[in-house]
Amino acid sequence: MRYREYASLTDGFSTGKLNRITDVPRLRVGHCTVDRDRPTVLRTGVTVLRIDDVITKPVWAACNVFNGYGKSMGLVQVDELGTMESHVFLTNTLSIGAVQQGAVKIALREHPGTTSFNAVVMECNDSYLSDIASLSVTDMMTIEAYDGVVEDFPMGSVGAGTGMICFGFKGGIGSSSRVIEIGGREYTLGALVLANFGRTADLKMPGPVDANFEEPQKTGGSLIMVLSTDIPLLPHHLKRVARHLSLSIGILGAPGYHGSGDIALAFSTADRSDPQALTIGEDGSTMSQIFKASVWATVEAILDSMFSSPDMKGFRGATPSILDSIRQRL
Amino acid sequence: MRYREYASLTDGFSTGKLNRITDVPRLRVGHCTVDRDRPTVLRTGVTVLRIDDVITKPVWAACNVFNGYGKSMGLVQVDELGTMESHVFLTNTLSIGAVQQGAVKIALREHPGTTSFNAVVMECNDSYLSDIASLSVTDMMTIEAYDGVVEDFPMGSVGAGTGMICFGFKGGIGSSSRVIEIGGREYTLGALVLANFGRTADLKMPGPVDANFEEPQKTGGSLIMVLSTDIPLLPHHLKRVARHLSLSIGILGAPGYHGSGDIALAFSTADRSDPQALTIGEDGSTMSQIFKASVWATVEAILDSMFSSPDMKGFRGATPSILDSIRQRL
Amino acid sequence: MRYREYASLTDGFSTGKLNRITDVPRLRVGHCTVDRDRPTVLRTGVTVLRIDDVITKPVWAACNVFNGYGKSMGLVQVDELGTMESHVFLTNTLSIGAVQQGAVKIALREHPGTTSFNAVVMECNDSYLSDIASLSVTDMMTIEAYDGVVEDFPMGSVGAGTGMICFGFKGGIGSSSRVIEIGGREYTLGALVLANFGRTADLKMPGPVDANFEEPQKTGGSLIMVLSTDIPLLPHHLKRVARHLSLSIGILGAPGYHGSGDIALAFSTADRSDPQALTIGEDGSTMSQIFKASVWATVEAILDSMFSSPDMKGFRGATPSILDSIRQRL
Amino acid sequence: MRYREYASLTDGFSTGKLNRITDVPRLRVGHCTVDRDRPTVLRTGVTVLRIDDVITKPVWAACNVFNGYGKSMGLVQVDELGTMESHVFLTNTLSIGAVQQGAVKIALREHPGTTSFNAVVMECNDSYLSDIASLSVTDMMTIEAYDGVVEDFPMGSVGAGTGMICFGFKGGIGSSSRVIEIGGREYTLGALVLANFGRTADLKMPGPVDANFEEPQKTGGSLIMVLSTDIPLLPHHLKRVARHLSLSIGILGAPGYHGSGDIALAFSTADRSDPQALTIGEDGSTMSQIFKASVWATVEAILDSMFSSPDMKGFRGATPSILDSIRQRL
Repeated sequence: MRYREYASLTDGFSTGKLNRITDVPRLRVGHCTVDRDRPTVLRTGVTVLRIDDVITKPVWAACNVFNGYGKSMGLVQVDELGTMESHVFLTNTLSIGAVQQGAVKIALREHPGTTSFNAVVMECNDSYLSDIASLSVTDMMTIEAYDGVVEDFPMGSVGAGTGMICFGFKGGIGSSSRVIEIGGREYTLGALVLANFGRTADLKMPGPVDANFEEPQKTGGSLIMVLSTDIPLLPHHLKRVARHLSLSIGILGAPGYHGSGDIALAFSTADRSDPQALTIGEDGSTMSQIFKASVWATVEAILDSMFSSPDMKGFRGATPSILDSIRQRL
Repeated sequence: MRYREYASLTDGFSTGKLNRITDVPRLRVGHCTVDRDRPTVLRTGVTVLRIDDVITKPVWAACNVFNGYGKSMGLVQVDELGTMESHVFLTNTLSIGAVQQGAVKIALREHPGTTSFNAVVMECNDSYLSDIASLSVTDMMTIEAYDGVVEDFPMGSVGAGTGMICFGFKGGIGSSSRVIEIGGREYTLGALVLANFGRTADLKMPGPVDANFEEPQKTGGSLIMVLSTDIPLLPHHLKRVARHLSLSIGILGAPGYHGSGDIALAFSTADRSDPQALTIGEDGSTMSQIFKASVWATVEAILDSMFSSPDMKGFRGATPSILDSIRQRL
Repeated sequence: MRYREYASLTDGFSTGKLNRITDVPRLRVGHCTVDRDRPTVLRTGVTVLRIDDVITKPVWAACNVFNGYGKSMGLVQVDELGTMESHVFLTNTLSIGAVQQGAVKIALREHPGTTSFNAVVMECNDSYLSDIASLSVTDMMTIEAYDGVVEDFPMGSVGAGTGMICFGFKGGIGSSSRVIEIGGREYTLGALVLANFGRTADLKMPGPVDANFEEPQKTGGSLIMVLSTDIPLLPHHLKRVARHLSLSIGILGAPGYHGSGDIALAFSTADRSDPQALTIGEDGSTMSQIFKASVWATVEAILDSMFSSPDMKGFRGATPSILDSIRQRL
Repeated sequence: MRYREYASLTDGFSTGKLNRITDVPRLRVGHCTVDRDRPTVLRTGVTVLRIDDVITKPVWAACNVFNGYGKSMGLVQVDELGTMESHVFLTNTLSIGAVQQGAVKIALREHPGTTSFNAVVMECNDSYLSDIASLSVTDMMTIEAYDGVVEDFPMGSVGAGTGMICFGFKGGIGSSSRVIEIGGREYTLGALVLANFGRTADLKMPGPVDANFEEPQKTGGSLIMVLSTDIPLLPHHLKRVARHLSLSIGILGAPGYHGSGDIALAFSTADRSDPQALTIGEDGSTMSQIFKASVWATVEAILDSMFSSPDMKGFRGATPSILDSIRQRL
């Protein structure tokens, strides 16, 4: 189920065809899910956002750390160069190294002479529902996720989202998109999140949630926000977009949390030689529209990470589905 | 009128005695208001947040630029040193230089040998209601505002807030405070805002606003957020607090705007030799509480900048009071 | 005298015609110098780097704070937007507000409808040689400096440089330029510095300096570095250039100092619609060349701030010329 | 051989007993070196800077990216919290993931309940001398390096330094230390570098180097600078120290390079509850001394990375030792 079937969103934009980040050209998403109870309880995995030809045609990109209690890799070079040469990889906190090795192997497989590669690997901590210390995610799972990318990908408790918790409910992978018209042409903005943050009491949504349960005591909690678009935007424009994405946390009622790695990445899939990049993001009212569409796509993606997830029992306890909690309104 | 008389806030903290930033020790606020129609229409002024003995006893401080379409002065050195040696001065965009000269004269008056001084002057643009190009704010008005500081200061359309507009309604100066208990002792967090941002359609509040009016076409729009506390916090703690304040923009429903200078400043009035500064902000759950209290004090301060302001006619048009718009609920 | 008459520089680039920042098109420099002994001892002033049509045609720009013990204004917005709409103004620490008012008046004189303006005013502290507390710099002096801009401008103890000290010797305004060939076309990089930093014992130059004098006990000391070029570079390229300029401090032997405001600004005078901006700075070896030319132009500008200055007696003492100290080699 | 046997350094500080970073208490260094010709040519490895008890007693820390063409991991959280909970791991560019997995296994071995861990892994690119694409560094090598830490560790072409090149000569691991007196007590500052940057023509050293060889065409080139001290310094002090370390690049004559990951990390091994941290770094002249000692320890460490290294033949060519080049002066 998606949030839009439960309540309307009032930002005024229409969504893309799939209402997913893959409405933006060049993008597909794949998961490798680890969901088993033996030899230990594992609710984890890898999610890959594949950008066609990104190694030979890097994309303009920028990132922003809103609250940096996180371990994401590859952001230093993105910040310096304003370009990203990597697909975007998501996994659990302790497995970023294994996934980086998988990302390098993918680069070497496709471009055998590679001697340098800046893998972008982002993470949230799923140790409440999954035995994270088992280090069960491997480089091979990364390649498996990459090889299985599709446009109409599943959301919620899949891939890197398998063991994540959001506002006390089951969270994980969420995605949404917005269509925006600039200069008579339609462009798409897409959000992909790995949502693992928030306390139930803070959540603001139309219609009450039934919070009659004991909220999981998690170690930390984070929010990875990825925003992509085919609008030709330069790195300094994308930096501003990345910074604005954190407002989605506030729109959902949350004041932020110490132990959260709230990190945003924004990139444009447009050809980097497109001269429109010199003008579109320099127009103030266009930029305000882009902020609005980006923030609301991120808000909806976070909501859908919850609305796509059933309840789940894991390593240290159980996590209810938000769907159970709002049952009477469905 | 204050927002609390209209609707409740659900963050769970109690406020300080005055529900103003001046509930924090060492602080008083003064205004110099310019409100006249001849020889030109002026709705502007200066507001000073005075910190007792700040020149001889600088405070731990940090700032954060959420959206930097703004001209605030003095932030470079605060960022470098983690200390602030200045009171906080607020005024209109074009007058920051005049107010800086006033701030320097105050420093020289009290400490005649001064050869270096980092004045912190922050601003929003009041050119919709005021003839900003007349450069009518002077260094002397700054001194007048400084000399008139009190604890129970007026809010809304006073001082620097005189000509400001917030979510399409009359805004300006707002303030609020929160009391928090840490280790068995009560501390206070106080927010002071100069609110001049937001579009009516974005505003989320309990109870509808009646937006049947034409929203002013402003040049830009900004939000200055100042957060002070007597909790002994170090610069790197305050940096995190300053960064979180921007979530207040999201909590009120806004996705951010290109032309906005959304800038936050956080400082601690505690003695800089207090060794508790080494531990309090290092505790994660305390820090999450501080984020929550700070963000919600800022939210309430923004709301009160509107709830304290009557409608106003100015240079280019009229700006309605939010109180008129929600009349039926009062 | 210029440094090149004393010793050679080995970076391998040729200079522009005037070996000044004004070798870059669109640029001229003007000074207003305050040098008098009554009613108090004043060695101060204003220097303006005028960029033709900058208000209507803002330039791509970026800044970097290496050591932020400084009060420079206007950097927040440059950082946010990647553009600068202001000429560059230099003055003493306490007078930035007066100069900002002058900058606003220039903007209003040329564009009467202006309601917002981000003046870039940078400063060093000349309080050792000048009675800085007299606040003798005015908005009118700023306009005077602006109205008197020329290409072949004087360096050393003029304008904002009048009272500055560098490596214990008389410093002030310095400038230099480099010519670079990219894709078969010649471009120019120009540096302008306000040099007021460094201890004599740290200075590394070909040929010894005679340091048999008591080094002035200054309050603070700073280095403002401005780099301009007609190469079409984007904000994220210019950010990198600005960051590299600080290496000039190391090349001259200095390890940096607590009380120094070492701040760099880099901008391109190229037309912002020039699509070459999308490619030139994306080429790594070109970028390395740009770093090298920029850093060495800045090094030479700092040296020339000293080589252009005679000794000077001022408010608290006397400052020798580096020319006296190396007399035997001249 | 060490640089001091070749020429004197003029910064005026004395070194610690070993003139290595391990002169700072709590620190030891270990290497795992991969140096073989079959099945492919490998000149690579892992170096670990072990900080006693760092997982249970994290250290105040800060980092600075001077030129971010680098892949270092773990910096985001260090920046956010001002603390580091990890030893410092160094390796080649493509192997950071493998080393991260080793770092996590060390954490789990010593603290079995660990569910979150921010490994700090930094890198340079050794692909000129080593077949980097073979991904030959493993998590186990990381543990081996960690288990073999000593105080009097070898420098040059060992561990992560095995395949590195510096100013066209064989570089790698270098280290140095300085003793500084503050308030009547002696403290130590130690530098550890992984040096893999610079062009021969840029190098400035007393005495000429004989550059009659063809400089290797490397992919990129980077400089990792680690500075540790037992002076109680707070994160905002350490941030300033980390930023200043880049001046060592300039002191050695280099203007910076596009393809370089020049990244600095500074941390204090003092007890985080030591109240002296509230005052020492707040004294300006102390801070200037700390900058000077830190920068010159880093300069010497870079020089010693070369002076400790014999020439080496590798994957794509040979790299001469600087010792050969300056033979006549030895």
